[in-house]
Amino acid sequence: MYSLSELQRSVADYMRGLDVDGNPHSLYEPIAYSLAAGGKRLRPMLTVLSCNIFSDNALSALPAAAALEVFHTFTLLHDDVMDNATVRRGKPSVYGKWGTNAALLSGDAMMIYSYKLLQQTPVEYLPAVLGCFNYTAMTVCEGQQMDMEFERRNDVTLEEYMAMIDKKTAALLAGATMIGAIQGGADTLSRRHLFSFATELGVAFQLQDDLLDAYGTEAQLGKPIGGDIIEGKKSFLMITAFDRADAAVRKQLHSLLEEKSMASDEKITRVLAIYDQLGVREIAEREIEAHFSRAMDALSCLEVEPERVEPLRALAQSLLGRNK
Amino acid sequence: MYSLSELQRSVADYMRGLDVDGNPHSLYEPIAYSLAAGGKRLRPMLTVLSCNIFSDNALSALPAAAALEVFHTFTLLHDDVMDNATVRRGKPSVYGKWGTNAALLSGDAMMIYSYKLLQQTPVEYLPAVLGCFNYTAMTVCEGQQMDMEFERRNDVTLEEYMAMIDKKTAALLAGATMIGAIQGGADTLSRRHLFSFATELGVAFQLQDDLLDAYGTEAQLGKPIGGDIIEGKKSFLMITAFDRADAAVRKQLHSLLEEKSMASDEKITRVLAIYDQLGVREIAEREIEAHFSRAMDALSCLEVEPERVEPLRALAQSLLGRNK
Repeated sequence: MYSLSELQRSVADYMRGLDVDGNPHSLYEPIAYSLAAGGKRLRPMLTVLSCNIFSDNALSALPAAAALEVFHTFTLLHDDVMDNATVRRGKPSVYGKWGTNAALLSGDAMMIYSYKLLQQTPVEYLPAVLGCFNYTAMTVCEGQQMDMEFERRNDVTLEEYMAMIDKKTAALLAGATMIGAIQGGADTLSRRHLFSFATELGVAFQLQDDLLDAYGTEAQLGKPIGGDIIEGKKSFLMITAFDRADAAVRKQLHSLLEEKSMASDEKITRVLAIYDQLGVREIAEREIEAHFSRAMDALSCLEVEPERVEPLRALAQSLLGRNK
Repeated sequence: MYSLSELQRSVADYMRGLDVDGNPHSLYEPIAYSLAAGGKRLRPMLTVLSCNIFSDNALSALPAAAALEVFHTFTLLHDDVMDNATVRRGKPSVYGKWGTNAALLSGDAMMIYSYKLLQQTPVEYLPAVLGCFNYTAMTVCEGQQMDMEFERRNDVTLEEYMAMIDKKTAALLAGATMIGAIQGGADTLSRRHLFSFATELGVAFQLQDDLLDAYGTEAQLGKPIGGDIIEGKKSFLMITAFDRADAAVRKQLHSLLEEKSMASDEKITRVLAIYDQLGVREIAEREIEAHFSRAMDALSCLEVEPERVEPLRALAQSLLGRNK
């Protein structure tokens, strides 16, 4: 069994050691660029930490763990084309730096590269891991499609929003966790608990992202605060605000969002004032807490020695800022 | 062992029977639309016909065969975005009908769907089949990247062009053939012969496509004649013409290609006159014949009863119009 920090080091080393090049170099350069941008490596960490619960050979899950991170990064390349986003994590996105065709084709190559990594999975686990990976990948596409369609609608319900983040965000965390559990040799019941854990964690994580966008700091968020408000995104906060507002406030909110000439700062301040007035922040915080707490409960259901679960629990806590 | 027409029917039935739907339906609709457009189903035919040489259970290769067709169709979806092509096989392309984001995201889902089909490969062959599929898919991306870069260059050599079609076109035919051979249980030497066969066939097939674009009929080509000339594409014919032309004719060809105001028909007629003058058609025909003949020789090297190879040979002959 490895500690959290040992596995963090292994994942970082493995990702850094990936040899992403070939001919023509121009196809591979955007792949190496976007993988080097880093991030929390949350998905591969979930894979190795889940494997680590059941097996002392968690490092054998590193190729599949990396496949999940590469797949996740591939989705960012294509999402940036669809969202016309030229900046990612404070740096030019592949789309911003090289344009649509490069983001498209190097993105495709990147998805194939994730399957090349997956191919290194020990053969006894390959069919199950491939099946889980395919299911997960397709679900993420479905979530992205829903998200794109929501942009053109003004009547997205909270239920629809929750179903969307379940597919777009939570499914990949759940897939990463399941793929680790499979390679650790987890039994069916344990897998089921871990699936609940990761799904609840994923929802809490996404809702926290929504919350930080409005109430966080630029340092926490890695980009300016209020982006969702300016883009008129149907976030958890915005949908909740519309749900709770009376006709007058709803009208006020609508005209604020459609206002083109107002300075961004001013618009953000006014929308936040409405959120505060409606208690939206507290509702979001309670919702995050509820999902996080269910995630922790699911972990407690695992019938293994408690210390084997500790590294995964610690990661989940630090992800949601619940570090002791 | 199955006959060519039996396998053609099986592939057509299998492709028609694919259940491509899910939630949201809008993600899957472009996939079903583009798969229904059909075509020769060349790649899946190569898979089952290769399997058929070594095994009486060629139908077990149908899922992987379909994976290759789905992958091929996915590349068309993304190529059409990159080429800004709104028409495909005489119908609106997915890009033309639904726009960039749909072609992008449904294309991604389609690639994942090809891996879902692959996942049905009998487990004893899965690692080898997945490895071959990944290698092939990456090579096709490399070929597409080269093709895109050639568009911006005026000094593409014949060697570079041949290397590009080797990756963009021939590799997928070779991959389809190898995946069938693997599932048929072919030995290493047989696989090597089949790889040569499919690669040579793929090159001949692409060169014939270049030739038909200039000298075929609209019925043969499925689109108006002379498209490559109008787009100024560096086809085998164009590169050969530049290679063989003296300075005066080269200058003439350059100014023809850069001429914006000339009617398309007029431009095509004039370029063809230069091709005729330089003997470009005959050079292309000889080159096609040479590759086709090497493909046939490679088939003859297979150490199996000759009649087992006949269905595959017949398909290759009909593909290149060499039917007896």
